[in-house]
Order: sequence, then C-alpha cells, then structure tokens
Amino acid sequence: MRLEKALPILSWSREYNRGTLISDLLAAIIVTIMLIPQSLAYALLAGLPAEVGLYASMLPLIAYGLLGSSRSLSVGPVAVVSLMTASAIGALGPLSGDEYLAAATLLALLSGAFLLLMGVFRLGFLANFLSHPVIAGFITASGILIACSQLRHILGIDAHGETLPSLLSSLLAELGNTNPYTLAIGLPVLSFLFWARNGLKRLLLTFGLSDYSATLLSKTGPIFGVIISSVAAAVFQLDERQVALVGFVPQGLPALAMPELSQSLWQELWLSAIFISIIGFVESVSVGHTLAAKKRQKISPNQELLGLGAANIASSVSGGFPVTGGFARSVVNFDAGAETPAAGIFTAIGIALAAIFLTPLLAYLPKATLAATIIVAVLALIDLSIVKKAWNYDRSDFIAVVTTITLTLLVGVEAGVACGVFASLTLHLYKTSQPHMAVVGEVPGTEHYRNINRHRVITHDEILSLRIDESLYFANAGFIEDRIYALLEDYPHTRHVILMCTAVNEIDLSALDALESINQRLKERDIRLHLSELKGPVMDVLKKTDFLGQLSGQVHLSQHLAVSTIIAAGKKPDTGSAPDWSI
Amino acid sequence: MRLEKALPILSWSREYNRGTLISDLLAAIIVTIMLIPQSLAYALLAGLPAEVGLYASMLPLIAYGLLGSSRSLSVGPVAVVSLMTASAIGALGPLSGDEYLAAATLLALLSGAFLLLMGVFRLGFLANFLSHPVIAGFITASGILIACSQLRHILGIDAHGETLPSLLSSLLAELGNTNPYTLAIGLPVLSFLFWARNGLKRLLLTFGLSDYSATLLSKTGPIFGVIISSVAAAVFQLDERQVALVGFVPQGLPALAMPELSQSLWQELWLSAIFISIIGFVESVSVGHTLAAKKRQKISPNQELLGLGAANIASSVSGGFPVTGGFARSVVNFDAGAETPAAGIFTAIGIALAAIFLTPLLAYLPKATLAATIIVAVLALIDLSIVKKAWNYDRSDFIAVVTTITLTLLVGVEAGVACGVFASLTLHLYKTSQPHMAVVGEVPGTEHYRNINRHRVITHDEILSLRIDESLYFANAGFIEDRIYALLEDYPHTRHVILMCTAVNEIDLSALDALESINQRLKERDIRLHLSELKGPVMDVLKKTDFLGQLSGQVHLSQHLAVSTIIAAGKKPDTGSAPDWSI
Repeated sequence: MRLEKALPILSWSREYNRGTLISDLLAAIIVTIMLIPQSLAYALLAGLPAEVGLYASMLPLIAYGLLGSSRSLSVGPVAVVSLMTASAIGALGPLSGDEYLAAATLLALLSGAFLLLMGVFRLGFLANFLSHPVIAGFITASGILIACSQLRHILGIDAHGETLPSLLSSLLAELGNTNPYTLAIGLPVLSFLFWARNGLKRLLLTFGLSDYSATLLSKTGPIFGVIISSVAAAVFQLDERQVALVGFVPQGLPALAMPELSQSLWQELWLSAIFISIIGFVESVSVGHTLAAKKRQKISPNQELLGLGAANIASSVSGGFPVTGGFARSVVNFDAGAETPAAGIFTAIGIALAAIFLTPLLAYLPKATLAATIIVAVLALIDLSIVKKAWNYDRSDFIAVVTTITLTLLVGVEAGVACGVFASLTLHLYKTSQPHMAVVGEVPGTEHYRNINRHRVITHDEILSLRIDESLYFANAGFIEDRIYALLEDYPHTRHVILMCTAVNEIDLSALDALESINQRLKERDIRLHLSELKGPVMDVLKKTDFLGQLSGQVHLSQHLAVSTIIAAGKKPDTGSAPDWSI
Repeated sequence: MRLEKALPILSWSREYNRGTLISDLLAAIIVTIMLIPQSLAYALLAGLPAEVGLYASMLPLIAYGLLGSSRSLSVGPVAVVSLMTASAIGALGPLSGDEYLAAATLLALLSGAFLLLMGVFRLGFLANFLSHPVIAGFITASGILIACSQLRHILGIDAHGETLPSLLSSLLAELGNTNPYTLAIGLPVLSFLFWARNGLKRLLLTFGLSDYSATLLSKTGPIFGVIISSVAAAVFQLDERQVALVGFVPQGLPALAMPELSQSLWQELWLSAIFISIIGFVESVSVGHTLAAKKRQKISPNQELLGLGAANIASSVSGGFPVTGGFARSVVNFDAGAETPAAGIFTAIGIALAAIFLTPLLAYLPKATLAATIIVAVLALIDLSIVKKAWNYDRSDFIAVVTTITLTLLVGVEAGVACGVFASLTLHLYKTSQPHMAVVGEVPGTEHYRNINRHRVITHDEILSLRIDESLYFANAGFIEDRIYALLEDYPHTRHVILMCTAVNEIDLSALDALESINQRLKERDIRLHLSELKGPVMDVLKKTDFLGQLSGQVHLSQHLAVSTIIAAGKKPDTGSAPDWSI
C-alpha cells in the first residue's frame, strides 16, 4: 500500500487493459499534434532554440507518469513558467547561446531539486499561502506581458523588455521597422488561430462531425497554421525577405547529460528556481485538482511535488528547461479521454518520433506563426474580472490582486508574486491584529447572544458581555486589552465582564499575560472577569497555568449560563465560588 | 483638545503647583545621582567616550518631556539599545574615534526620524507584532551578551566579540593577561554593587530610615562605587599600573550640530536604525504602560513614538547616541515621586550641571567600575524562566523564545529579533493554516453543540455538524475543503453538512471559492451544505455575492435551529426553501 502511494504507476498499471490502452493512445495522438507547435513556441518564449521545447516534452512526461498522482495532467513547457525562465536568465546579463541553454537546464535542475525536497518534507501545504487573488492576478499580468513580448515576432522587429512599460516603449520605438512580409504571415495566422478557437469547431460540426470529435479536432488548429505558413515561407522564399524562420533544427533525440554545475550560476539562479517551482506547482496542482474532481479522483499535493520534481530533473538531463502541468494541454488530454498517465508516456513517444522525423520540415516555419500560437494561448489566461470581483468583495483581496498585477507588470514576475504574497499575508495579520469585538446581549426567548448593534437583545447594566471575534495572540493582545478598558468607560456600571470566547481558538503566552493583567486591573476596580464558551483545546492549555486560579470570576460552559449564574448570585450573598468547568 | 493631545505638556503644565514642583525636584535629584554613573557606563558599552553618555541624558529628556505621553518615563541611554548601537557600528568595520561618534549620532538621527514617521502615520500597533516570548528572550540574551562583554573591563584585558562564542573564546584567550590591579578594583566594586541591591536598603533600614527613603537611597549605591574607586585610583596612581581609567573628559555642554549626512553611512545604518527604534519603542512602551497603570493613567503608543523620536533627534544634534525610556531609571523616577515630565527636565538640568562642574573629577574613574555598574544592572534583565514557562505552555511560544535567544547569542542582536518575529509569525500562520475542526453534537437538554470527542452529545446519522475553529482564508481554504471530503468518508450516511461558523470571523475570496466548490461537489453527491451562526460582518460580505443563492442548504441563526429545521423538514416533504436569515 505504501509503495503504491509512493509509486502511483503500481496502482493504475494493474487495472490497465485494452480499453484504457486505446483511450490513452487516442488522447496521446491529439495531444502530440497540439504539443508540437506549442512546445516549439514556448521554447521561443523562454529565449531558447525551438528544439529545446521538444526535448522538454519527452522525458518529463515519462518521469511524471511514473511518480505523479494525477491521471490526466499533461506536463511540459507552459507559458508562465517559460516567461519566468526568460526573465530569470535575462537577469544574468548578455549570454551566448550555449551559456543561455546551460542556465536553462540548470534552472530546471534546481527547480526539480527544490520540488523534490518540498515533496520529501511534505511541504505541499506552502502553496496554500498563495491566495486565489494573487494567483489570478499573477496569471493575468503574466499573460499580458507574454502577449506583448510576442508582438515583436508578428511585426518582425527587435523589441525587448522585462516590464510592460519597457516592452511597450521598445515596441513603439521599433514600430517603423516593421517587416511587411513577416506581418503578412503573422496577421493571417493570428486571425486564423483566433477563429479556430471557436469557428473551427462550428465548421466541423456543419461537416457532420460529432460534438466530441469537433471539439478535439478544433484543438489541433495550430498545426494547420504551422503547415500552411511553413509551406508559404518555403514557396515564397521568405527567408530572403528577412522573415525570421526557425531554421536548422538538429534531427534526433537529445543527448542525456548532467547540466554543468557552475557555482556562480547556481548562486544567481536558486531564488528564481524557487519562484518557478512554486508557481509551476501551484498552476499544476490547481489544474490537477479540477480534473481529478470531475472523475471523483484525488491528487496528493506532496506526491505531485515528487512527480513535478522528477519531471524537471528529467527535463534538465535531456537538455530541456523548467516544465510543469499545463492548463490547456491537460484539459485537451482529459477531454480526449486519457485514462492513465500512460497517455503522457505515449505522448512523449509521439514527440520523440516528431523530433526524429519531422524536424527537417521545421526549417521554414516562421517564428511569427509560433508567436501567434502563444498570443492566442495566453489571451485565454488574461481575466481582469478578478479585479472587479475582489473590489466588490473585500478590500484586502482587492489590494492583494492589484499589488500583484501592478508589480508583475511594472517590476517583474518574481517581484509581482513575492509582493502579492507579502501583501496578502500582511493584510491578513493586520486584520487579525485589530479584531472585531461585539458587545452582545440575549436574543429574547433563546439562549443565544448576539451583537447589541445588530439585534434586539436583552442586556444587564452590571454585566458587560463581550464577544471577541479572533484568537487571542501576541499581535492583538494589547489591542484587546486597551479596547476592554475603553469599553468600561462607556459602561460605567459594569461589575462583571464576560468574555465570550466562541471565536477564540488559541490563547498564546502573550495573550495570557494580557488576560492576567486585565484580570488584575479589573479586580482593583472591583470588577470580576469571567470567560464563557471556551473551547476544549484552549481550556486544556489554560489548565496548565495558574490563571484559572487567579481569575476573579468563573469559567462558564455557555454565555447563557454565565449571565444566569451571575444574576442568580446577585440575588443571594456572594460566595466567591471557584471556577466551574464541570460539564 | 487636539492640541493638548499633540502636546501633552499643555495638559499637565496647567495643573502644575508647588506640590508637584517639590515632588518633581526631589525625583530629579535622585535620578540624576543614579544617572551619572549609568550614562557614563552605557556610553562605554556603546563603544563611545564617557561624556557622550552625559550628552545623551540632557536634551533628549527635555524633548521627551514636551511631547511624550508618559508622566513617569525617564529617557536616556539604556543597556540593550547601547549594545545594539555598538553592534550596528561595529559592523561597519574599524573606525576612528570621530568616525565612530559620527556614526552614533547619525544612528540616533535615523532612529529619531523613523520613530517620528511611525508616529505621524500612527504605526504604533506594529510593536504588537513582537510577542512577549520574543521580547523576553531578546532582553535575556542581550543581558547575557552585555554582561559577558563587560567582563573584559573587570579583568583589564582586551577581548571583543559580537556573539557569545566569539566573546567567550576571546575572553578565554586573553585570560592570562588579566591585570591584577584592575581586578582589585573591579571585583570589590562588583561585590559592593551586588550587595547594595538588597543589603544597602536593609542597612539603611537598621539606621532608622523609612522604607521609602531606604529604597530610594539604596538606588544611589553606584555613585558611592564611583567615588570610592575614583579616589582609590587617584591615591594609588593606578593609571601607572595600566588600569584603564575614563581619563580626560571635556568640561561643559555639548555643541549643537546636525550630524553629518554621509550617504554611504546612511545606507549602511538605516536598517540597524529601524531595529534600534523598534526595540527601544517596545521597551519604552512596556515600561510606560506598567507605570501609567499604577496611577490609572494612560499612555498613547503613537504619542510615545513622537516623544521618543524627538528625544533621539535631540540626542543626535547634541552629540549623543540612540536613547529610549529605560526600565530601571523610570522605576526610580516613579518611586521617587515624579509627578510630571518636568522631573525629566529637571534631571536634564542636573546632568548639565554635572557635565559643567564634575567632569574633571571623572579623570580617575576606573572603567572597571562602570563595567561593574553595567553588569549588575543587566543581570537583573536576565530571566531564563521564560523558556520554561513557554515550554510548559505552548510549543510555538517555546520555539519563538528559543529561536530568539539562540540567534541573538550566536548570530547577533538584529538577527535574533528578526528571526524571533519571523518565527512567531510563521508559526501563527502555520497554525491557522491547519485549523482545528470538531464534529459537534447537542449537549442534551441545552441548545449547545460541543465536540463529540469531549462531551456526551446527541448526533444524527444524516447530519454532519462541523465546527471550524478558524477564520476561512486563503491559507486554510484548501485544507478545510480536503478535510470535509475526508470526513464524509467517515460519515457515509450524511445528507446534510452544517458548518458551524462561531469562530469564522472572515471568509476571504479564496475561501469563498472553496465554499462554492464544496457546495458544488456536495450537491453532486446529493448532500446539502448549510451554514449556522454566521456573524454579522461575515454575512454582510456574503450577501454581496451570489453564493447564498447557490447554496444547496440554508443559513441558520444557530446550530440548534439548523439541526431542528433539518429534522423537521425530514418529516415532511422537502420544499427546497430559500436561505433564511430573517432574525
């Protein structure tokens, strides 16, 4: 059982049969056709030679197939991670082609190692600290950056930049040098791919194809763009018109080799590798979760770390760059009926065959076509509605998403994610440091106590019932203490303060000190401090201290019991009984 | 009123009379006598000439007196801040005396500016993020470092180090060079001061002094150590025996001047200035709080920032180093009967008189005496009981205190504080990311629902009542979602899941997404999702979304109503009524 959990292949390979084989093979064929242009394009986006995209789409799929826990995830180069790769290596300064490739493979190795380490130490939960607004904002901003960065290939100009302002100003400055031949290829392909996203399916439906086949076939649209534009480039000899073509691509499979472990390079790239790992992991896990849920399957985040870690190391040793589970390709894989990770392994074989037999045909492929593929793919990622949604919902979420988008666009991808996470954590801590507190009273005819400002409730002059809507910990202990003293000035007849602790999940040592000081100061003013509705785990901790002994009042099971006990005691002489926690 | 709040002097000066004048004058005399050796000693600890300690004890007291909100706080050089000053300037590498002093005054200026900024932007709450275990651990570790660093003056050797291991190894290596004459001064003074802490008061009591006078007079013990050891050094010509003496001290008041604003120095010191400001602020505010509470007075943290900021800038322009409100001196000031900040202003005058008239007498003061003063003062700060207390109380507090102490001793003061804060925040976030959740049932005969594992309660097979003991936010949204699905496997007959939200103080956008997905997946399995005991602020936010419309179950005012409504509905045909939030 444990071995099966560590090596998911053991569980699915046992139930493998002819039916699953056929499903997997069919899915593999469709994904392969979709992947060829995509992997070439993402290599281009990462600043690498086109064939590196193919290399990153072979071994990683097999490695993930052996270790990963998702049955539908398709691993390989993806847009956001390719952008981050380009950004990380770009920061090293100008490099030769070989140095650039060496940095990319090292980045994949470091990412893989980091993912494996996280998996071994079961740190998958760390991804939870990226909130949805941060992730959504980051993906959207990255999509905008990627789309803008690819415009230069459509226009046939040389414009670069890591940030939106530098990209746009560079594009504008070069606009006059637009190559009309490149544009004549780029624009039609772009239009075709846009149309293919919806129109191709409708067309196929009119040809009498089933909805299922039409959907899947329409996903292979890019390959037609590749074929037609390559033929056009060859026929019209566009290379003589300065149209950028992919050019010579080495035929065959990549040589396996450990990437060079230069220490200086290592030191410059490790932080970027961590960013790439985390973003890649989050993207992959969210896709994996979505697809698994549709089939009532499960994925294990820690197992995913191992699968993705192995995939990146496999990419590195086969001359590739960082990879992860992609959204578009995984959905196609799922829709095409992939039943097990074997589909990924078959896809790897398909890509390998393409690398052996089809690479000579890529010489005439215009880079504009690949750029168009990328632009159409990433425009689907851009969704600014999260900004409006967050604005309507909550100020903190809004600040987090705006911080992430703004910094990603203006400073860079790593700064964007880092500041987004920092902003969301800081805002969360800030909120919990100044918690909501409500004076409560009895909802007539029930045992329930609610906010006196929101409900018509019964209160008693000598009793101040206060609900603290937060755990008591160091960041809010002082705030709560001050707030109680301030409230006592508004309620001068108070003889009993009852803290209703329904929302108090923790009382740490700093908060205990604050409670002791509150108890002491109230005692000096002849006011008793009571606690009600303490939870079991909190009570367990308090029992280890002498606070309950010092407490001037009592601990009550419920707010209702607290109030009725105090009122009953007020009618007879005070006996100063000990804290009661009998039930 | 607002002006009075901004300038506290306006409120206390109005009620100033002969009685308060006499109290303040008396307190000022006692504090002055106590302060002379202390301020010389802390200048020595900070690595500065002795007179700088006097300079830092004049203008800062006046500046604080005008702006500060505490009536008893005594501002000036203190042990921990002096240590941090030495550590910050030591990190710049070897400096000449003038350069060192310039760095110290710049550090005071930067600290002052930072404190003022924090005050203007009302950021006093930031100090709350230092938990009590972190503060206690830091003060204890600093005390150990300070005491060890002063041993070299008692032994008359040259031993330095920023960390405990380097200090100790340096001390051990130099132990052979101990100067017997220095030791012959240092040890008796040290013993006298130790005895004076308790013994002197007892002796004075036997002489018939009142408890009050005996307590105060015993605090002036150090001045006798200063006088006697100076006389001994002069009489026996100890300077000829290589006993380190304070030597020439310029007579008179410091010249006022803006510190030199070297940009490179500025850039190297600003981070240290922030650390010094925050630690100084926290120390000062906690003393101020304690003393104010004894007289039912209040201090305002944001006003304190302004007062301390002004004090540091005043120190800087009068050739001093960073200052803050000190514990020992403030307690003496309070005990001596200081009624208003005028006592501080009188103290400043006393120190000024000392600087004018007494400085020639300091030439023969042995540094060993000052070191003994420091050692006795800081040993009172060392309290390792916090480690045991935290160990018994809670693992997180224990980790925070041990991290702080260990890193302060082994790496340095700034690393110690920074890692302590980081550890306590991380542990807090980690805990809230994996919240406690309890399956609850009805406590028989009441409307209360408690943990089924802790109480004998009534449950229903088709209803899973789940209390989530934490706000729902991005860091725990995924955890809670997984946990609910896992629980459903343990409770296979569940038809209704009720999330009891007594402890849910917030539902952020990420958590809302999780709730929507839980609702959707439960709906697919024909299980309804209900919410109970939602708080007003949370309900307000949810009403802005369409989640309540999608919810397969209802929102109930209380858990009890939720369960009874579901059971009642189970007995009649289901009407699929809309969410109910009528009460």
